[in-house]
Amino acid sequence: MDLSLFFAGTGGSVPTARRGLPALLLRRGGDRLLFDCGEGTQRQLLRTVGLPDVEAVYLTHLHADHWLGLPGMLKTFDLRDRELPLTVHGPAPLKQVLELMRVVYGRVRYRLDVVELGPGDAVARDGYTVHAIGAEHRGPALSYALVEDARPGRFDAELATRLGVTPGPDFGRLQAGETVGGVSPDRVIGPGRPGRKLVISGDTRPTELLAVAAHEADVLVHEATFADEEAQRARETGHTTAREAATLARDAQVRMLALTHLSTRYGGREVRDEAREVFPGAVVPRDFDTIEVPFPEKGDPELIRWDATPAARAPR
Amino acid sequence: MDLSLFFAGTGGSVPTARRGLPALLLRRGGDRLLFDCGEGTQRQLLRTVGLPDVEAVYLTHLHADHWLGLPGMLKTFDLRDRELPLTVHGPAPLKQVLELMRVVYGRVRYRLDVVELGPGDAVARDGYTVHAIGAEHRGPALSYALVEDARPGRFDAELATRLGVTPGPDFGRLQAGETVGGVSPDRVIGPGRPGRKLVISGDTRPTELLAVAAHEADVLVHEATFADEEAQRARETGHTTAREAATLARDAQVRMLALTHLSTRYGGREVRDEAREVFPGAVVPRDFDTIEVPFPEKGDPELIRWDATPAARAPR
Repeated sequence: MDLSLFFAGTGGSVPTARRGLPALLLRRGGDRLLFDCGEGTQRQLLRTVGLPDVEAVYLTHLHADHWLGLPGMLKTFDLRDRELPLTVHGPAPLKQVLELMRVVYGRVRYRLDVVELGPGDAVARDGYTVHAIGAEHRGPALSYALVEDARPGRFDAELATRLGVTPGPDFGRLQAGETVGGVSPDRVIGPGRPGRKLVISGDTRPTELLAVAAHEADVLVHEATFADEEAQRARETGHTTAREAATLARDAQVRMLALTHLSTRYGGREVRDEAREVFPGAVVPRDFDTIEVPFPEKGDPELIRWDATPAARAPR
Repeated sequence: MDLSLFFAGTGGSVPTARRGLPALLLRRGGDRLLFDCGEGTQRQLLRTVGLPDVEAVYLTHLHADHWLGLPGMLKTFDLRDRELPLTVHGPAPLKQVLELMRVVYGRVRYRLDVVELGPGDAVARDGYTVHAIGAEHRGPALSYALVEDARPGRFDAELATRLGVTPGPDFGRLQAGETVGGVSPDRVIGPGRPGRKLVISGDTRPTELLAVAAHEADVLVHEATFADEEAQRARETGHTTAREAATLARDAQVRMLALTHLSTRYGGREVRDEAREVFPGAVVPRDFDTIEVPFPEKGDPELIRWDATPAARAPR
């Protein structure tokens, strides 16, 4: 099951020539989930991977740089005759904000559900759950963790055969939990294997809660609005420095740390270098980079720099 | 005095990979005026000519594809510590819409004036006037004409000298309208010369009123959402076909016709070819193209394809 993160916008509250406003597309199998949707997100997607009919949107908080691209996208979906339902999640007052924005998208013809989430809420989906984690920003704010369901343990076909089970339907019965010919499943099926875990901080101070939620995550996408030199400012504005994010990632023993939501004053290298002093593998994705997340036994998550097609590379 | 139009977004109501949502930056000397401001406009500018502290914004109407980039831009101006005042113009209910959008931009620290305009209203600025012209779309909609003040006639220094006026301060007095040594100004100063005129249709059916306002305009920027094959649809939705726009331009004897606001179904060539059957010089600017508008005696308006810097050409 493919799992990847596409960075549609990696800037902070003000866009730059190189970094768009926050948006992160999560792809798992055929599912498309969007985390935050800053102004211009629909076009960031159109210019690169195409605008998918995302099934669900998760907003981390309601500062406009994180959601202003949503009303136009809702409208575009309608103009494209979308039929699939869409659910938008986020902290209160999400319903109120989206109601105000009806001036933009009016009445859409597909089913649009708006779900307000609080810390501790969880949304179960097919094969995984999205958990909302309380964040520490200015006003209600959430981090999100996507946690896959545990996978069944490995079936040892060779051992089962040696124990006298005939390959074929009996193997299926064993894997489904039945005892076959005196052989119980636990003898030939290994322990359950945890699914993958991706954690997205949203805008926040580093918190103990997030460190716990991110324990051994495959990927932690954490904001790093500032570098250490602005540590005071980060505290005042409810943001995190690169060093703080890296420290959290190290303590949580995550497999990969991706830093995003950079202030306009940073190109990326300063933030990356500072983080790597604490967490050597830290990466700072650029717009349109992808992180592929294989199952742990298949290798480490990998940052793939965007392979631009000529059409997408040219701005027209 | 330099005068030019920079096409920041040339698409219709839905963006494509190549065409952003409507926005047109008019530059005259040091003045920067923005006509319409679709979602993503601030970034279209940041990626190319930079985001200028525009003095005034003119919205043609209040369909969201024409203004959704404004609230975020107002916010960005504030985050950049803008001090210059800004006036936003447009048809009613502009005030109501911008009040609703305070959820995005909150309280800005620069002076922000909102001025609702109706057909026939005019805004005098230093050296030119912006006229609001009633358009025919769905709901209140305006076209705009920027008309420069007439320039004084040409001063014939040689003739004045022959008539006995001494070059120097007396030339200045003549040009200021005084009679000097029996020589009246009208004998040595030619007839006043009209200023330049730019007309921007906004979304509209072709109208007689616009044809009159565009009479002998240097540049007419007209929407051409559809080609002829969709003439019926153009009528129903309050838009114009390429052929209709070209016919209007020919009847109005404009010097240059630029077609914009293309539906996603057109790349640009079909629209251009159709228009050229009626108005041979018609152009269809791409995003980031510029039209330079010299004084008539200096030559014809010229479409300049965008000379991308490497940073702007790459999307990151």
